[in-house]
Amino acid sequence: MMTKPFKRLLLTGAAGGLGKILRDRIKPWADVVVLSDIADMGEAREGEEIVQCDLADKAAVMKLMEGVEAVLHFGGISTENTFENIMQANILGTANIYEAAHKLGVKRIVFASSNHTVGFYRNTDYIDAGAVTRPDSFYGVSKCFGEQLASYYWDRTGLETVALRIGSSFPEPNDRRMMVTWLSYDDLEEALRRSLFATRVGFTILFGMSNNDVAWWDNSKAAHLGYKPKDSSSQFDAKFPDSGDYPAPNASVTYHGGAFALAEVRYKA
Amino acid sequence: MMTKPFKRLLLTGAAGGLGKILRDRIKPWADVVVLSDIADMGEAREGEEIVQCDLADKAAVMKLMEGVEAVLHFGGISTENTFENIMQANILGTANIYEAAHKLGVKRIVFASSNHTVGFYRNTDYIDAGAVTRPDSFYGVSKCFGEQLASYYWDRTGLETVALRIGSSFPEPNDRRMMVTWLSYDDLEEALRRSLFATRVGFTILFGMSNNDVAWWDNSKAAHLGYKPKDSSSQFDAKFPDSGDYPAPNASVTYHGGAFALAEVRYKA
Amino acid sequence: MMTKPFKRLLLTGAAGGLGKILRDRIKPWADVVVLSDIADMGEAREGEEIVQCDLADKAAVMKLMEGVEAVLHFGGISTENTFENIMQANILGTANIYEAAHKLGVKRIVFASSNHTVGFYRNTDYIDAGAVTRPDSFYGVSKCFGEQLASYYWDRTGLETVALRIGSSFPEPNDRRMMVTWLSYDDLEEALRRSLFATRVGFTILFGMSNNDVAWWDNSKAAHLGYKPKDSSSQFDAKFPDSGDYPAPNASVTYHGGAFALAEVRYKA
Amino acid sequence: MMTKPFKRLLLTGAAGGLGKILRDRIKPWADVVVLSDIADMGEAREGEEIVQCDLADKAAVMKLMEGVEAVLHFGGISTENTFENIMQANILGTANIYEAAHKLGVKRIVFASSNHTVGFYRNTDYIDAGAVTRPDSFYGVSKCFGEQLASYYWDRTGLETVALRIGSSFPEPNDRRMMVTWLSYDDLEEALRRSLFATRVGFTILFGMSNNDVAWWDNSKAAHLGYKPKDSSSQFDAKFPDSGDYPAPNASVTYHGGAFALAEVRYKA
Amino acid sequence: MMTKPFKRLLLTGAAGGLGKILRDRIKPWADVVVLSDIADMGEAREGEEIVQCDLADKAAVMKLMEGVEAVLHFGGISTENTFENIMQANILGTANIYEAAHKLGVKRIVFASSNHTVGFYRNTDYIDAGAVTRPDSFYGVSKCFGEQLASYYWDRTGLETVALRIGSSFPEPNDRRMMVTWLSYDDLEEALRRSLFATRVGFTILFGMSNNDVAWWDNSKAAHLGYKPKDSSSQFDAKFPDSGDYPAPNASVTYHGGAFALAEVRYKA
Amino acid sequence: MMTKPFKRLLLTGAAGGLGKILRDRIKPWADVVVLSDIADMGEAREGEEIVQCDLADKAAVMKLMEGVEAVLHFGGISTENTFENIMQANILGTANIYEAAHKLGVKRIVFASSNHTVGFYRNTDYIDAGAVTRPDSFYGVSKCFGEQLASYYWDRTGLETVALRIGSSFPEPNDRRMMVTWLSYDDLEEALRRSLFATRVGFTILFGMSNNDVAWWDNSKAAHLGYKPKDSSSQFDAKFPDSGDYPAPNASVTYHGGAFALAEVRYKA
Repeated sequence: MMTKPFKRLLLTGAAGGLGKILRDRIKPWADVVVLSDIADMGEAREGEEIVQCDLADKAAVMKLMEGVEAVLHFGGISTENTFENIMQANILGTANIYEAAHKLGVKRIVFASSNHTVGFYRNTDYIDAGAVTRPDSFYGVSKCFGEQLASYYWDRTGLETVALRIGSSFPEPNDRRMMVTWLSYDDLEEALRRSLFATRVGFTILFGMSNNDVAWWDNSKAAHLGYKPKDSSSQFDAKFPDSGDYPAPNASVTYHGGAFALAEVRYKA
Repeated sequence: MMTKPFKRLLLTGAAGGLGKILRDRIKPWADVVVLSDIADMGEAREGEEIVQCDLADKAAVMKLMEGVEAVLHFGGISTENTFENIMQANILGTANIYEAAHKLGVKRIVFASSNHTVGFYRNTDYIDAGAVTRPDSFYGVSKCFGEQLASYYWDRTGLETVALRIGSSFPEPNDRRMMVTWLSYDDLEEALRRSLFATRVGFTILFGMSNNDVAWWDNSKAAHLGYKPKDSSSQFDAKFPDSGDYPAPNASVTYHGGAFALAEVRYKA
Repeated sequence: MMTKPFKRLLLTGAAGGLGKILRDRIKPWADVVVLSDIADMGEAREGEEIVQCDLADKAAVMKLMEGVEAVLHFGGISTENTFENIMQANILGTANIYEAAHKLGVKRIVFASSNHTVGFYRNTDYIDAGAVTRPDSFYGVSKCFGEQLASYYWDRTGLETVALRIGSSFPEPNDRRMMVTWLSYDDLEEALRRSLFATRVGFTILFGMSNNDVAWWDNSKAAHLGYKPKDSSSQFDAKFPDSGDYPAPNASVTYHGGAFALAEVRYKA
Repeated sequence: MMTKPFKRLLLTGAAGGLGKILRDRIKPWADVVVLSDIADMGEAREGEEIVQCDLADKAAVMKLMEGVEAVLHFGGISTENTFENIMQANILGTANIYEAAHKLGVKRIVFASSNHTVGFYRNTDYIDAGAVTRPDSFYGVSKCFGEQLASYYWDRTGLETVALRIGSSFPEPNDRRMMVTWLSYDDLEEALRRSLFATRVGFTILFGMSNNDVAWWDNSKAAHLGYKPKDSSSQFDAKFPDSGDYPAPNASVTYHGGAFALAEVRYKA
Repeated sequence: MMTKPFKRLLLTGAAGGLGKILRDRIKPWADVVVLSDIADMGEAREGEEIVQCDLADKAAVMKLMEGVEAVLHFGGISTENTFENIMQANILGTANIYEAAHKLGVKRIVFASSNHTVGFYRNTDYIDAGAVTRPDSFYGVSKCFGEQLASYYWDRTGLETVALRIGSSFPEPNDRRMMVTWLSYDDLEEALRRSLFATRVGFTILFGMSNNDVAWWDNSKAAHLGYKPKDSSSQFDAKFPDSGDYPAPNASVTYHGGAFALAEVRYKA
Repeated sequence: MMTKPFKRLLLTGAAGGLGKILRDRIKPWADVVVLSDIADMGEAREGEEIVQCDLADKAAVMKLMEGVEAVLHFGGISTENTFENIMQANILGTANIYEAAHKLGVKRIVFASSNHTVGFYRNTDYIDAGAVTRPDSFYGVSKCFGEQLASYYWDRTGLETVALRIGSSFPEPNDRRMMVTWLSYDDLEEALRRSLFATRVGFTILFGMSNNDVAWWDNSKAAHLGYKPKDSSSQFDAKFPDSGDYPAPNASVTYHGGAFALAEVRYKA
């Protein structure tokens, strides 16, 4: 029998949209997959441990991470919300994860960052990981925070991070913008695999997108990961036929961040 | 029956070399294709309207463009000539097209620009759309002018342009330089399709080349168009066998602009 | 009598080290200077209003900022501390300032950021405001957060910020590193003046340093502010005579962030 | 007696605003200064020749330039106008100057270009001569044309040009924008002197501004000219006192091109 | 019968590891392949000439190169050694080759350079041919020397060079680092073919690697060669299964130069 | 009495042109200045030791450097010569210096490099230390070698170097090119002082020029040295009056390297 790469691998946010998708896909990577979420996740299956945990609770996070070798950090709030809620879940939660990881000797975290860190670039801008961030929401700001914190821990303590700026990871694109930002589940899995098993990553930013025809993001600064997406949103071209309606009826195509970057949908606290 | 993207689409220069190639290929994009040229174009076929028109005639251009939703601007002189002729056909003609487009509310123009805007780069230079232009002829200067005018109309009025810097669009490459600059007719059509139907383009420069082995131009600044050429000049490799004759017998390979950039062929006015 | 530029100008952190220095210097800029701090500031003098206020208290901040036209945001913790303390004072405090400013129509904030946003660059690196941040402490991460939040408010709401990345603002340099990072009080005042009164700043990052011989930071991306420092640390050259001791006895000269970036001084929570 | 550098030096546009200023200042540079304009210039003084000439008249330009060794090309329309007028004066006129210069062996032209070639950059953009042009007017487009033509003649024929992108050359700044773009007459003269007498210039773009506190333009790509402005608009600071009115009452400060770039002042043909 | 591109083509270092691989592969390119080495190479086969020659012997090199049209310069020491040995074989040897080539009118040399010219970049750095060199050994320094000498001969005399920075050219990758640096023999041959027969190369640097998943080097500055590798180390993925051992057991993956860049293996003279 | 920074400081090439100039100027920096040259240097004065030494003699160099704390390496051939001579004096000589420095624990070397490392750039090119080298002579290639060797020793062993690319260090400029490249003796001394006493330099390249009006080189990548030249060649403007002779009578102004880069003066071996 083949040895699995990890003994214990933690997935936070396991009850979330992507968490559910990943639950089975990551099993081959660890003897035990630890699944955590603030929500109930039901029964543990074979090879799983389930821990209901509020990431804003520092002591609980320390306990959660005992014996863990690597973390897929998908926990937190994944859309716009009040600043206070975002701060507890995404800022304090992530700080607790990193401090525990450092104290317990975890060597690598894959952090689920977001395109909303650069959501205010326009669709005619083609950027790479060296572009200054332009977040489009409190949510986006919190993801910038997570990246900065990860950079700090790498420079200071040697704890490595791949920050995966996820585009739109759904079964298929639902609007024209997602034709650009789409990340298939298979490619998401491959991005995580590359991020976990590359020999040395330091602090690396990887844009999470499939091999779509249109691209806003250049992954050459992450060429050392060897991530090669296999899917393309072009298989869904027929859903969005050619049209001379300028600009697109869904104006969200103006910015990388889509609707997040439109003034009228700003969060009303 | 499927609705076509445009009601009226104008192709200028329809009697020219590329105009003739495009005439049938663009029909699926509009209920009525308006074909204009200073030369006679014979009878209109179904779904066409034919207008003989000198683009230097401002009033005629205004009339030509009534009801038009988008323009493929291929009109003008397509090779070197006296400055005076170039000025009338390419500078004044293009100015008339843009002013009419603005006044009539046309939203997008695909402008047939040329590699001769950058013809004085050398074949060891690899440039993108941000490189300063280095025209190699009055013709090349007039194409720079068209691009600048398009930039102005975009910044000022919101009229969008894709400037397609066409390499060498012929049935097949005729010399070593065209192995680099070749743009197959199918890829030309695809470049136009992407330019017309991308959701938002602002002022975009796209180098018009197929997926050839050797490349002088980097289209990453137009990644938002999603143009993916399908042909390659490598299918014609056997026409140009390996040879140790340095430099190539046809010295035009020295510059991007080929023979246009050679001193001895300067236009004698 | 000359009219002052503002009716009400807010200085947060007015009881802090730089707050005390600025208290009198900013008086010519407003009819009323509002001074806030979590600490006691004694009696208000003429032309002042004093408000003791915890910036983490959202309602108190809203009240504090009523009628204010511009803010010099120096409040918060200005050195390394526990993450929890930093989060309350610098992250939540800054978020409250920006949200109140937006709601109340304040048009510009000068944010006291820090060189610790880029503290992990080495002393042989010469960077400008486009360099990716490399914070050296929780404190530095919190300043990155403030900059990102400011960027978001600018892109979203039009609220302008100058983020002043202060080097070392003291009466004179105390070690070799400060010969590089020193910002005299007069130059600090001038940097604030330029930041407040430039006609349009959007979101601008300005490195706060005097015209010292050695420089790690390039302010050309803030050339529109017209900040021209008049002092130089070279007046203190005699304090640090030439020496062949490599590296400098005070090893903090290795990193932009000085001692903050040294492993042994990491905050012990 | 000292020999003058040139026998014959041509100044076009000699009756224009700057032409009048330069008339006496350039006398030390040539035995004979040839002054041309479409307008009447009165009597020639000692060391001058006066030629009334429409630059759109090719034959007249050939005659005008006989024996001339270098040209200061200030002729044409210097503000916004109809495209047709701009084309005759600035496009055809400049083409005639260059073709005559080439045919007659003139070796260098200083071309009065303009900041309106880059007028659509914003006041927070700091650009150099490698930035893509963004003209703000037909006038600006015609200056881009002149630069492109000059680039072509240099690459093709070896005729050298310094394109001087003049900011605002007036006795003193008249609004906040001119505090940035101001070029004193002494500095203008020095820029011309450097441009004429540098040993080798190829095709060089020089931004024409004094040593003002605020700068939008970086002249490092013209460092081989050695232009060191001696004046600064800061001597006029008192005309524009500090103010918290954001943005400036004169909104033209938003763009490099000032009022030229504002939609409401677009030329009504 | 087809004419071969060259009459005489020289391969130096023909008895070395890659020399033996190339011996048959390059035969189609020349009527006579001249094979040289300091070691014995046995009998010449048809279409070969064999010359035993010490490249540090200037007169012998002149004789060796008579009638040669192009050179594949693989001679010299191909691993770390004393500086004195490296100097004789790689520095003096290469100088002799270039001087003879210049005197005899050879027009192009393909120089076997090495990734050890940039061996001190880290595996998270993605560099192109414009990156400053960072050699990791005397061997690497000698390859930098060869590139500089080639640059000099190109600028001065017009003798063209492609410097091929070979990664790891072996039958298959032997460690994780070689998964990145691997250059298959077929791709090596193709790189040489492109380098020899491109129409104009000036002084070009090409990184010699196959189309592997992970890449540290960007060949866009050599896009004019049209080199398209067909193999990929991914065919050997199973040799190196996923593992959570950070960093890789073979620490050589830290630097581009692998073990060459590790302090403990420094050459002990 | 003030302590001097070094006990023993070595100056190689002490009998050369610049060596003689520096002999007295460097005395304040060390208790004992060790002066070496292949030529006779006469009697040692107080505070000096004189060692006649061929740098190509490894054992002699080891002996020379015993007890030395820092080196000003000006030894070798300082103009064009046969490759063989250059190799012995500049390549082998420099290798011996570095190996001895490493073995003896010397911490810093200031290496007298040259503008001839970049001599084939044109006078319209403005470059910084990141520009790829383009040597113009065997001499220039040998200086590139020295820089590469220094880079290697820094990355490998921590031995620091400032490579000072000296322009033209003479009492005053002798031709137009030297108006650009001139480095006054006072500024040379200051460049050495900064290079020796900066707290940390790693491997730094500094262009050695005074504060001349025209500049070809940008020292911003060496901003951490704090070198501020005080002289300017403009004091000699009158020696080179304005002239319309294009190009300059002394054609050497075309290239950074001046006459070194002209084909007709290539070294005849």
